Amino acid sequence: MLLPFVTALLASAAPTATQPPAGSASVLEADENWIAVPDETLVYLDVAGKRVVMQLLPDLAPQNVDLISKLLDDGAFDGGTINRVQENYVVQWGEKPDHDRGDLPDTAPAEFDHERGSGITTIPFGDSYAPQVGFHGQAYAAQDGERWWPIHCYGMVGAGRDMAADSATGGELYVVTGQAPRHLDRNITLVGRVIWGMENLTSLPRGTGALGFYETDKEKVPITMRAATSVPLADRIELETIPTGSSAFAQWVDARANRARDGWFLYSHGAIDICNVPIPVREAD
Amino acid sequence: MLLPFVTALLASAAPTATQPPAGSASVLEADENWIAVPDETLVYLDVAGKRVVMQLLPDLAPQNVDLISKLLDDGAFDGGTINRVQENYVVQWGEKPDHDRGDLPDTAPAEFDHERGSGITTIPFGDSYAPQVGFHGQAYAAQDGERWWPIHCYGMVGAGRDMAADSATGGELYVVTGQAPRHLDRNITLVGRVIWGMENLTSLPRGTGALGFYETDKEKVPITMRAATSVPLADRIELETIPTGSSAFAQWVDARANRARDGWFLYSHGAIDICNVPIPVREAD
Repeated sequence: MLLPFVTALLASAAPTATQPPAGSASVLEADENWIAVPDETLVYLDVAGKRVVMQLLPDLAPQNVDLISKLLDDGAFDGGTINRVQENYVVQWGEKPDHDRGDLPDTAPAEFDHERGSGITTIPFGDSYAPQVGFHGQAYAAQDGERWWPIHCYGMVGAGRDMAADSATGGELYVVTGQAPRHLDRNITLVGRVIWGMENLTSLPRGTGALGFYETDKEKVPITMRAATSVPLADRIELETIPTGSSAFAQWVDARANRARDGWFLYSHGAIDICNVPIPVREAD
Repeated sequence: MLLPFVTALLASAAPTATQPPAGSASVLEADENWIAVPDETLVYLDVAGKRVVMQLLPDLAPQNVDLISKLLDDGAFDGGTINRVQENYVVQWGEKPDHDRGDLPDTAPAEFDHERGSGITTIPFGDSYAPQVGFHGQAYAAQDGERWWPIHCYGMVGAGRDMAADSATGGELYVVTGQAPRHLDRNITLVGRVIWGMENLTSLPRGTGALGFYETDKEKVPITMRAATSVPLADRIELETIPTGSSAFAQWVDARANRARDGWFLYSHGAIDICNVPIPVREAD
């Protein structure tokens, strides 16, 4: 017996009588589906000379992102290091140990979830952790009747904290590298997403200490981290994405939930886990 | 508002009036919860001299596992290579290119799912893809009213196939390395699980060809792959696990769904995604 297909398709993705439903490739191939990612939102994390591009998303955590941005402007992360590479979990990096914060606060408040307001763009599929899941801007997110919160899918970036909820310094950041650790949702502040070059983080040697921390300074990989706008134009990378609120993105979700349209696949589940929906990013021509 | 805790706990994990519910650490610390993993089920995949241990699980796919076992006995994988490392998806390796199969068949049948029979050991939490999820032996699995099937969680190993359902040769195997690609469930044959040394696969350089294939022979990483029982005792590794059907494992699932028992965590979801339940494995003393 095949599982029944989910009947509640996204309205905007529903095919007309004459148009077959879109496969994954056709959504990606249509140039009109893509928009430029503004440099103003981007941070270049260079890891032993290899580029990783992170998008800071102030809507997720305004006060934490503000503190991180000020640390960036201060050059706090130039001369920092990758400190932790834990298999199937996170890669974590930090500011240089001797950075003088001057007047900046030591920590930012906990920003784990938010008043729901107009809510997130939902996908019409179930989730093990939350009543509804989808996207808030270019971030993975969930909501119930009263709150929304960003969620720990692959590539999401958070601000490491100690035992206290409000102990994040902004100077230690982590990115999710494996099976989505959704148990971290609502337990720690998410601030953005790595949108390019994840492989330069995930292929690093694993740390052999507890929680995957590197045990010696020699193992720690040197980084720089700079606002994209502070880098000469010639050294930037132009990236494009498909906005999560667009009808093209709704088609993308629908296509990814119905893979048998794509060939090779023989069976469509008619559903998809939110963290299995890649947010497409490409380099501009 | 906090999400309501799921009230349907596993019966065997329900605490008594005098025992608090177990946290993750206490389940792992109790030596009586662990049993030896029999060498007869294990395969050593050595990757550039680093050991990866895979458990072949004949219940998942008897005919495919039989073919793979015969290829192993033939030494088909000694002199093979890692051929593909695709970010957040799979690592794939293959038999040596010039291996003569002799009388062995070229392919094995599709073994994507099975008659349900007595079914799987379920966990009491929802899933985006299947009516019920849990474990079949030491494999992640799902079921509906009529069928059960192994599922693509991190570490699960499958037999690569071409376009036809029955085109798996047994000589090309892949392991899931990132967010569970559950869209592959019921589309390809799963044969086992890597239970040790995943980091020796996941930290390999990503392939730069389509689908993460290495583009030159020089990039391909040499492997050997041998039945553990063919390796001298002194060179084996003794591993232990917690059986998925045990009450200790039910406590483990319950503890992982309620992380605030563990400290640091402030909020428990009272639920967990099946692919977020690690199957504990440790080296024997």
